[in-house]
Amino acid sequence: MKKVLWSALTPAEQQQVLLRPAMAASDSITATVTGIIDRVKTEGDAALKALSAQFDKVELVDIRLSDEAMKQACDSLPASLKTALREAYRNIRSFHAAQVHRPLSVETQPGVLCEMHSRAIEAVGLYIPGGSAPLPSTVLMLGVPAEIAGCGRKVLVSPPPIAPEIVYAASLCGIDEIYQVGGAQAVAALAFGTESVPKVDKIYGPGNSFVTEAKRQVSQAIGGAAIDMPAGPSEVLVIADERANADFIAADLLSQAEHGPDSQVVVVTPSDKLADEVNEALARQLAELSRAGIAEQALDNSIAIVCADMTEAVAISNEYGPEHLIVQTENPRQYLNAIQHAGSVFLGDWTPESVGDYASGTNHVLPTYGYVRTYSSLSLNDFCKRFTVQELTADGLAGLAPIVTAIADAEGLDAHRNAVTVRTQVLENKNGGGS
Amino acid sequence: MKKVLWSALTPAEQQQVLLRPAMAASDSITATVTGIIDRVKTEGDAALKALSAQFDKVELVDIRLSDEAMKQACDSLPASLKTALREAYRNIRSFHAAQVHRPLSVETQPGVLCEMHSRAIEAVGLYIPGGSAPLPSTVLMLGVPAEIAGCGRKVLVSPPPIAPEIVYAASLCGIDEIYQVGGAQAVAALAFGTESVPKVDKIYGPGNSFVTEAKRQVSQAIGGAAIDMPAGPSEVLVIADERANADFIAADLLSQAEHGPDSQVVVVTPSDKLADEVNEALARQLAELSRAGIAEQALDNSIAIVCADMTEAVAISNEYGPEHLIVQTENPRQYLNAIQHAGSVFLGDWTPESVGDYASGTNHVLPTYGYVRTYSSLSLNDFCKRFTVQELTADGLAGLAPIVTAIADAEGLDAHRNAVTVRTQVLENKNGGGS
Repeated sequence: MKKVLWSALTPAEQQQVLLRPAMAASDSITATVTGIIDRVKTEGDAALKALSAQFDKVELVDIRLSDEAMKQACDSLPASLKTALREAYRNIRSFHAAQVHRPLSVETQPGVLCEMHSRAIEAVGLYIPGGSAPLPSTVLMLGVPAEIAGCGRKVLVSPPPIAPEIVYAASLCGIDEIYQVGGAQAVAALAFGTESVPKVDKIYGPGNSFVTEAKRQVSQAIGGAAIDMPAGPSEVLVIADERANADFIAADLLSQAEHGPDSQVVVVTPSDKLADEVNEALARQLAELSRAGIAEQALDNSIAIVCADMTEAVAISNEYGPEHLIVQTENPRQYLNAIQHAGSVFLGDWTPESVGDYASGTNHVLPTYGYVRTYSSLSLNDFCKRFTVQELTADGLAGLAPIVTAIADAEGLDAHRNAVTVRTQVLENKNGGGS
Repeated sequence: MKKVLWSALTPAEQQQVLLRPAMAASDSITATVTGIIDRVKTEGDAALKALSAQFDKVELVDIRLSDEAMKQACDSLPASLKTALREAYRNIRSFHAAQVHRPLSVETQPGVLCEMHSRAIEAVGLYIPGGSAPLPSTVLMLGVPAEIAGCGRKVLVSPPPIAPEIVYAASLCGIDEIYQVGGAQAVAALAFGTESVPKVDKIYGPGNSFVTEAKRQVSQAIGGAAIDMPAGPSEVLVIADERANADFIAADLLSQAEHGPDSQVVVVTPSDKLADEVNEALARQLAELSRAGIAEQALDNSIAIVCADMTEAVAISNEYGPEHLIVQTENPRQYLNAIQHAGSVFLGDWTPESVGDYASGTNHVLPTYGYVRTYSSLSLNDFCKRFTVQELTADGLAGLAPIVTAIADAEGLDAHRNAVTVRTQVLENKNGGGS
């Protein structure tokens, strides 16, 4: 990876170093996806079957996975993998269950009660990528919060053939509705419904550029579906001091780099020596990876930044706003308050990113591409919506009336005033009746 | 308003009754807004001045409101209105302060600590509509949570000339950056920045169809800005039993109807008699309103639904998913658990919608147009983002390692496995050294 000395760069060059590669769906992808969505809307299941034959080379008979097929898939999985998935499920469940919204109630002034309540989103669609390496971990990251929230309908879609580990992870989360369809056509089916696939309210999960573009388009369509968050390539930034272990850092960088050629990998350290050691360790470790080709392409765009001190390291990290931030320093917790922009933070030498990817309990669906500035880590929140409630006593309304009528007058909204005075007049007549 | 008997309708007719009017920006608005955004991106302040001259008929010298102008505006406001705005501010602040995120910490298994932390969004842009009736209440609804969250930069934009009540409400929320620019050009300036107007991370607030379309476009643009929620016409649904006061209901319906000709107004009641009384009360009250013309147009599209009982009334309300839901029944709280989809709920005879619009303490920025199915009432949450943190001890990693490596193997991600084993090997060597 390329090494730069931060202090030797002009501000413009510094900005350039942290710039992510341009990302936008090509016009051709946009048009293809629009065509697929239109076709699914008009032809329904027939379109799903035709598109699966075209893109996935699979002739679907039943789009929905049968109970029997689900049972067979679960039975076929090695016990050791089942145990690992169950234990990961338990940790993810434990952390997400702690996020349950507690109803909020405040008497803002006498007789004026304001509350906030939460409800599960009724029907959710979970997109799980397929291909050579199935991702059961992503099933847990989407399925667990949907289960805890109590979403009435949890619909999983994934390109055929669906791997048994995906089916087993789904069953752990109480998901019994699995459809063997992927790509933009699966997103369209979830957003608008077909004969087989039910329409859902919100769609979650990662996917290739067609899936991403389809999610974007249906989220903008009237009568479409909401989506979890905008997508981008996966990223890691490691902050390390001179005492950090270069092998650990290299392993963390490679675990990000192997995701795809567009993965972003950054190290920030005040130690020039460490930066060199990490580069050496990368070369050693890379040779042994099955996905070395992918990781090598990602490392071509990666960068080691040698900065003045830890304060500057944190500032550079905040400027970049990484999806994953690993802090391998003495007493890493001291920097937590200064961290402003990150998707998930990994503190200390014994906390590699892969624990969060799978099993620590945190969610691995995170904002990337700088969206951490405004978006949050996926959480139970995203499977619920919150509404407010207010309840006034007659005295409460009488107390609030002068405030409401004064502002209604200022805004020129008579009927807003009347809705209060029609009531206070009744109260005055009632009270006046005895005098 | 039109009256329908629910049981006399077919399911398709029932769906039709609850259907909202089609809403989509016309191609002409979309293109105009795209042109305005491009122009602001390339010409900056010059474009803002030219477009303000064209659309607002104002020749701007300074885009930013001076401290002196802010002081003069505040001084010019009647004391009674200042008092009302301060008291509304106090209630809104009290309810939103109770929403502050408490850091979450869970040890999911021994030595594996997972946390969730919250940070304010750094720079926020607050759009306040101008025109004949300035909306200081909206300033409070956006400014108070931004102030409590601790957003580093709070930028308010509003079409010139900016009314003194807007300036005063802004000053209550600690906003000292006000720009005299409105419309799509203001949204573009907030999203991309100009010489005068700073770029912000997220844009909030209501506006006309040009503002709405501009928010939509910049939220989809790379390097643009996030937005609070999709927009739609304002709505109210009133559930009432036979003992409800028809005058109260009519006043509530009119306070919604006067917002605009596209306002949606629905009453659901098991009492045919009440439905007729509401209609009579509407006619009486309408005559006295200054905005009677607007309200009358809205009432043309409104509907009274006579249903079988309260259970059905709540089911119809859930099917519609109103922005505002008023429940004027005996013991209204008994229905709260059954309410699934609403933006804000008003319980009982003494809780008109206008208290929530201004001063009860809840936020009046709410999802409309059925977006309540997936979106929440605006809250402190929307001015913050949350990230997770994990910290493992060496023993914690050793305990988690078998789970992570088993799943990494299943997903075919060697480097994910290595990031764990490179560490556990160090631990084993350390422990093994003594045996």
